[in-house]
Amino acid sequence: MRLSKRITNLTGGGSDGWDVFRRARAMEDAGKPVINLTLGDHDIPTDPDILHAMHEAALDGNTGYPLVPGADELRDAIAERVTERTGVPTGRNNVVVMPGGQGALFAAHAATCDHGDTALFVEPYYATYPGSVRGIGAIPKTVPARPEFDFQPQPQDIIDAIDMRTRSLLINTPHNPTGVVYSRETLEGIAKVMIDRNMWLISDEVYDTQVWEGEHLSPRALPGMADRTLVIGSLSKSHAMTGSRVGWIVGPEEAIDHLINLSTHTTYGLPAYIQDAAIYALEEGGEIEDDIAERFRQRRETALSILEKSNDFITVPSQGAMYLMLDIRNTGMTGEAFANALLDSELVGVMPGESFGESAAGHVRIALTVDEDQLREALTRLVRFAEAEARAA
Amino acid sequence: MRLSKRITNLTGGGSDGWDVFRRARAMEDAGKPVINLTLGDHDIPTDPDILHAMHEAALDGNTGYPLVPGADELRDAIAERVTERTGVPTGRNNVVVMPGGQGALFAAHAATCDHGDTALFVEPYYATYPGSVRGIGAIPKTVPARPEFDFQPQPQDIIDAIDMRTRSLLINTPHNPTGVVYSRETLEGIAKVMIDRNMWLISDEVYDTQVWEGEHLSPRALPGMADRTLVIGSLSKSHAMTGSRVGWIVGPEEAIDHLINLSTHTTYGLPAYIQDAAIYALEEGGEIEDDIAERFRQRRETALSILEKSNDFITVPSQGAMYLMLDIRNTGMTGEAFANALLDSELVGVMPGESFGESAAGHVRIALTVDEDQLREALTRLVRFAEAEARAA
Repeated sequence: MRLSKRITNLTGGGSDGWDVFRRARAMEDAGKPVINLTLGDHDIPTDPDILHAMHEAALDGNTGYPLVPGADELRDAIAERVTERTGVPTGRNNVVVMPGGQGALFAAHAATCDHGDTALFVEPYYATYPGSVRGIGAIPKTVPARPEFDFQPQPQDIIDAIDMRTRSLLINTPHNPTGVVYSRETLEGIAKVMIDRNMWLISDEVYDTQVWEGEHLSPRALPGMADRTLVIGSLSKSHAMTGSRVGWIVGPEEAIDHLINLSTHTTYGLPAYIQDAAIYALEEGGEIEDDIAERFRQRRETALSILEKSNDFITVPSQGAMYLMLDIRNTGMTGEAFANALLDSELVGVMPGESFGESAAGHVRIALTVDEDQLREALTRLVRFAEAEARAA
Repeated sequence: MRLSKRITNLTGGGSDGWDVFRRARAMEDAGKPVINLTLGDHDIPTDPDILHAMHEAALDGNTGYPLVPGADELRDAIAERVTERTGVPTGRNNVVVMPGGQGALFAAHAATCDHGDTALFVEPYYATYPGSVRGIGAIPKTVPARPEFDFQPQPQDIIDAIDMRTRSLLINTPHNPTGVVYSRETLEGIAKVMIDRNMWLISDEVYDTQVWEGEHLSPRALPGMADRTLVIGSLSKSHAMTGSRVGWIVGPEEAIDHLINLSTHTTYGLPAYIQDAAIYALEEGGEIEDDIAERFRQRRETALSILEKSNDFITVPSQGAMYLMLDIRNTGMTGEAFANALLDSELVGVMPGESFGESAAGHVRIALTVDEDQLREALTRLVRFAEAEARAA
């Protein structure tokens, strides 16, 4: 039976670039002592206090249909958080809860792009970006962010990518996979293009609590941008709640109204007891949140202290998110060859930059998602391997 | 800023026919002793044993990213249930979990219809059906199921609705809002049209544990239908888990493969600890399930014993689901006028048939979602009201 073109073309065909990840996972499953730094999932479980809040709400009977937009208290807590952090007055009606950042990404594109429209996104990019665009029948198109500009996207590259049917640009700061935080200059340049070309900006800010240098600036706070920006947020990274699938979109009221209609038809809302857990996390979970950020801050410092000893690769400016990116072109290898050889000879799994787009070729991404001892061991092996390869090159 | 046509047209404009529901809710909120039989949400909370299983899984650390297709054990449990109940050999690869029946409805249409294709659904219908089709950029079109045929859809009405771009038909049995269960003859007639016209059948069977007369037949079990049927199931009604948003699609492996890709982009799967609760519900929750069905069976009998005393309306054959439908045309009123007047004079909320489509005009739907005492009281008032109106007519 014929399936829709939309769904059969979703992944765009070809390799998804995640072969190293799958090989590392298979070696782990086969009992090999692989230290796996490929994936951005938390090694930290959700805090029991948050889980107890959830269980209490469920036992208390909050098990019927949820409010599709999100519970009032949850939307208020998100709005307050956004107002505090960005200075942009944000109310309940600017917020809709979504099944994780991924659900928010999909819905934001559904709200802004029609069938056949073009949706831009910055490359290198998180794996699901192009499929999230194809899934709503629009056409994904990349804007390169180049290593020579420290992976900060340049206005001219955005302008060059715009066609007659371009409706939106998706950015992500702090950035996965590079760990770069977009500068004010970068964001002002992006904002100018959005306003000049009357485009939507979809701003994925799910790493906004993981900023190690400088500060996170939400482009929604720039002049003229609140009416044309949909911000994607989530509790996945900030509160180690990846599995609870709690995300949101913040944007203009009219867009949020329509997004609520969409949620009625895509999911009928998030489980209400999970929403109660989310309220607890936002209202009472400050220490939990700080503790999680602190752990990643320490891991990053530990990692940098090891990596900076070597001259055989360059660490991309590490400003935020739970990743470090290394430029390993000194070794003469591609990121893919490096990652495969590192996995085989040192039992350390990292992601090739090529998995995230051409601009990250010759790089590898390190996820800081293991404890410090393992991280130290893995990076010591990585440095040893890179030095040997660089000498051989 | 311009939003997509897809999202701004989602609800089709005009009244959604849920004014009586909102008025009943507002009167309740204002403290009036309304007995509200408008909504299909469980008054029964999720069983604590299921919630404890969930909490245990979460405390045990199952709080990271879920497996997007669903946990193996959950997919196996669903496959086994389907195999047992329908006789159609069904394996893990025929199953993908979805955020509730609603998430499954949306995804099934995304998988079968492209932009501009036509998706048929039977009228009267559940409120989200047309929006679920519009949400994926396809065109919703109704097939009437008429009171003179006891709301069983007729092949000729399906054939009359088919156009050049029709890809699918959505049916629902046991049926909301009428309480009718489709007969073998009806389903064979539908199957013949699907095969003759090379169409997908999307079969919403979320009420399959609530069958009071005759038996539920899944059309996927009919000859030639397993390859062209996507069955939508859920734990919402069977296990009083509406708020947990656990649903699934059962279908051909190729369709399921692509639906898993879609889920990666729409939601990134269901919370893993909820999947563990669902495994518990399916593997250990037999008594819970039977008890819930039994309560609705008793409520239905109580309701019928009251309704059958009156000759002033006709009860649509009540065979399944948590609803009864009354033909109140003897009163000379529309369903809407009847429901509004009943709410005002007797403080009883029911849904006008018109809310579900033209074919149910002059009918009202009663949801059996209050306890027996309240139900008895509400229906006694309803009978009194209808008799007075019929005499006046």
